Amino acid sequence: MNIHNPFDLPHAEPRALATALEKLAARFGNRLVTSQAVREQHAHTMTWLKSQPPDAVVMAQETADIQDVVRICAANGVPVIAFGTGTSLEGQVNAPAGGVCIDLRDMNKVLAVHVEDLDCVIQPGITRKTLNEQLRDQGVFFPIDPGADASIGGMTATRASGTNAVRYGTMRDNVLALKVVRGDGEIITTGTRAKKSSAGYDLTHLFVGAEGTLGIISELTIKLRGIPETIAAGSCSFETVEGACQATILAIQTGIPLARIELLNAAQVKACNVYSKLSLPETPLLLLEFHGSEVEVAEQTRRFGEIARECGGGGFEWTTHPEDRTRLWQARHDAYWAVRGLRPGAGVVATDVCVPISRLADCVTETEADLIRLNLLSPIVGHVGDGNFHCSLLCDINDPEEMARADDFMHRLVERAQSMDGTCTGEHGIGQGKQKYLLGELGPEALDAMRALKRALDPQNIFNPGKIVPSA
Amino acid sequence: MNIHNPFDLPHAEPRALATALEKLAARFGNRLVTSQAVREQHAHTMTWLKSQPPDAVVMAQETADIQDVVRICAANGVPVIAFGTGTSLEGQVNAPAGGVCIDLRDMNKVLAVHVEDLDCVIQPGITRKTLNEQLRDQGVFFPIDPGADASIGGMTATRASGTNAVRYGTMRDNVLALKVVRGDGEIITTGTRAKKSSAGYDLTHLFVGAEGTLGIISELTIKLRGIPETIAAGSCSFETVEGACQATILAIQTGIPLARIELLNAAQVKACNVYSKLSLPETPLLLLEFHGSEVEVAEQTRRFGEIARECGGGGFEWTTHPEDRTRLWQARHDAYWAVRGLRPGAGVVATDVCVPISRLADCVTETEADLIRLNLLSPIVGHVGDGNFHCSLLCDINDPEEMARADDFMHRLVERAQSMDGTCTGEHGIGQGKQKYLLGELGPEALDAMRALKRALDPQNIFNPGKIVPSA
Repeated sequence: MNIHNPFDLPHAEPRALATALEKLAARFGNRLVTSQAVREQHAHTMTWLKSQPPDAVVMAQETADIQDVVRICAANGVPVIAFGTGTSLEGQVNAPAGGVCIDLRDMNKVLAVHVEDLDCVIQPGITRKTLNEQLRDQGVFFPIDPGADASIGGMTATRASGTNAVRYGTMRDNVLALKVVRGDGEIITTGTRAKKSSAGYDLTHLFVGAEGTLGIISELTIKLRGIPETIAAGSCSFETVEGACQATILAIQTGIPLARIELLNAAQVKACNVYSKLSLPETPLLLLEFHGSEVEVAEQTRRFGEIARECGGGGFEWTTHPEDRTRLWQARHDAYWAVRGLRPGAGVVATDVCVPISRLADCVTETEADLIRLNLLSPIVGHVGDGNFHCSLLCDINDPEEMARADDFMHRLVERAQSMDGTCTGEHGIGQGKQKYLLGELGPEALDAMRALKRALDPQNIFNPGKIVPSA
Repeated sequence: MNIHNPFDLPHAEPRALATALEKLAARFGNRLVTSQAVREQHAHTMTWLKSQPPDAVVMAQETADIQDVVRICAANGVPVIAFGTGTSLEGQVNAPAGGVCIDLRDMNKVLAVHVEDLDCVIQPGITRKTLNEQLRDQGVFFPIDPGADASIGGMTATRASGTNAVRYGTMRDNVLALKVVRGDGEIITTGTRAKKSSAGYDLTHLFVGAEGTLGIISELTIKLRGIPETIAAGSCSFETVEGACQATILAIQTGIPLARIELLNAAQVKACNVYSKLSLPETPLLLLEFHGSEVEVAEQTRRFGEIARECGGGGFEWTTHPEDRTRLWQARHDAYWAVRGLRPGAGVVATDVCVPISRLADCVTETEADLIRLNLLSPIVGHVGDGNFHCSLLCDINDPEEMARADDFMHRLVERAQSMDGTCTGEHGIGQGKQKYLLGELGPEALDAMRALKRALDPQNIFNPGKIVPSA
């Protein structure tokens, strides 16, 4: 099927853009920035995807700022792109049609914390670490941890998840309600603070994962959890990926509420040994975290230990002491830098897929074989409880032949995952990078539906154009 | 605001309807039924809402049947209404514009069970009890329990939940993917079997809770859980609703994974004592269920017992023996019939709201006072872990004065819940009965968005017209 190039879109009419920028300058003064350096900081910078800066950046401070940017841009047919921390991985903040980027980092307030209800109301620009620092004294935390210290608005827009989704779910499961600025600048309220509701279409979850293509999130109500009394870290080596996956399957089936369970394949363990001067067995490794009361954590680790032994796991260790926890998880904390250390100066081509957990061992093993076949270097780290794993290809991004191999690898990876009833992305999103895979995953009818939704809520196509849905 | 009457809609043009029925008769033979009795069985029968039968019923046996009904109806502008077990409570299966009801009870197959992945693929007509009977041997179960033995397709369409949503979530949290027949008879696939995905707009959750207004669900992939090793039932009386709610809040905050926690108010306990010949203290009662390993369940009950005592709870009992569990929960099992026994022959006007749990005690207490003020009889049962509670007004539905008081009560109940940041329905849905409350809850922008979504996915307005979204 012939799909459009998501990097090559028509820009706004130059005079309309100039008019919009004039009006924005009048409204925002020096909070409208058009310098090359700042524009480039707001383009996609995380991966090998081409960087496409916006025409201007507005530093928003309050909801009314977002509303005015949207109104001015909509009146002139100029695209609007929301920006949190710029840590998305599939080109989500690129501006392939130009336009105005709304930088939300200053909209970082906690508006209300309801400890008894385990929820809080926040502005979109607050990052997860800042939020958790502000919550800690009240004995609650926001559990989603995608690695990067991303903004909660951005995490919502990309439906992020990370290491503890196995217990606490993804952003989809942790957003109760949103306020979203629509194309005429008015605000859609998608829900209430009630923990559940059957009141009409689920607008909240339509905006979660929409990557800013249906409106701009201006406020969020999110779920919190009580900080567990006891946290234990654990680690266990396996001879094979199959053994590690089988232990994970059994642990989940029998209801052990694992808080985190991360798989490092042999290549990743090797990289960590070198980088962090560890002496882990260079075989697949599971790193775990357990949350609960002291008794519960002891019981969880006992049960997991039994399962791990049955599945050929060796040397299961666990601890509740903070320093020892850090030591056990050292390999995971350093994973990214350990990978970079394998080939200093190389680019990192990051990608993720997600499959039913029963197929995870096959998918990882076949992927490892493919890396060898294609002579590519990529350790593998997986959120194995979800069936989600990441490759980080170390490539010379200026070598077209190597990049062609990387591209071939990624195509095959996605097709492999999809052929196993899986998805082309578990947590990175579609952005520009993965549009070509949606059709193969869901079929033309789903794409029709997505296009119809986009037209319904953004008839002008001003919100982050060129993302998610390939043009027909 | 002037909204339309959801009971009074224009019907299909009579000749178009006749043409559609002729074509359906040719295609389905005696599986097309137009007898008065069968049509009436497929109208709304559960509550005081006016019953509005469809013009005909088709007994579907496979997906192709749904597709053909939709194609024939769409070609003639005739509405299509999906029917599972008819246990919805807000008029969801009424046919205010006439049309053809698709009865899905014969589409009740389990198509695949993936025990390792804790999911299964089913047809929409299977009921939750039948499904769980078929799953039991494999050590897994589907946790959502709304009380009625509803079809899973219907539970999905109304975003149902019930007694154990506090631990396992609602239908929203337990549907992985759907196949949905759209207006041209083609099928939209909304997702894969991967546990999580960031691949595009969340179509799955747009159809969950859409009450059949955006298409007909023809296949579902749902999440399963391992049957817990140990199940304990518990019961604890409190002097006040506040005490019971405070115990619930603390239990959830400290992370006790309660499987069920049900509140019966004093009036409900009294009704149960009479009906089931029990001798419970006639004060607010919490009934609980705990799932886990033996050690975990012992720990959960120990921790809950401490919290209950702190909050003024008396006589906390728990047991893992099946017969004793049944005895402890007797009051809950008989709650519906105990309510009916309070006023034999009266109609039951059932309604639900949901508020943040910190407001639940206030909401229940104010509601109890309102019942006295309005001289109405309604015990209250609550899924207190979710902040969701039910009133069952016992009314003479032929007494306009009493029904006017009931209507006044329900308005005030919804407004009370909404004023506490809650929702007009936690689990019954909007249907026809609660359309008038959506605007007050979410505002005109959300309604605009819902109308735009309806137009986008059902431009002909043939899927269950007159439900959820009030006409502008």
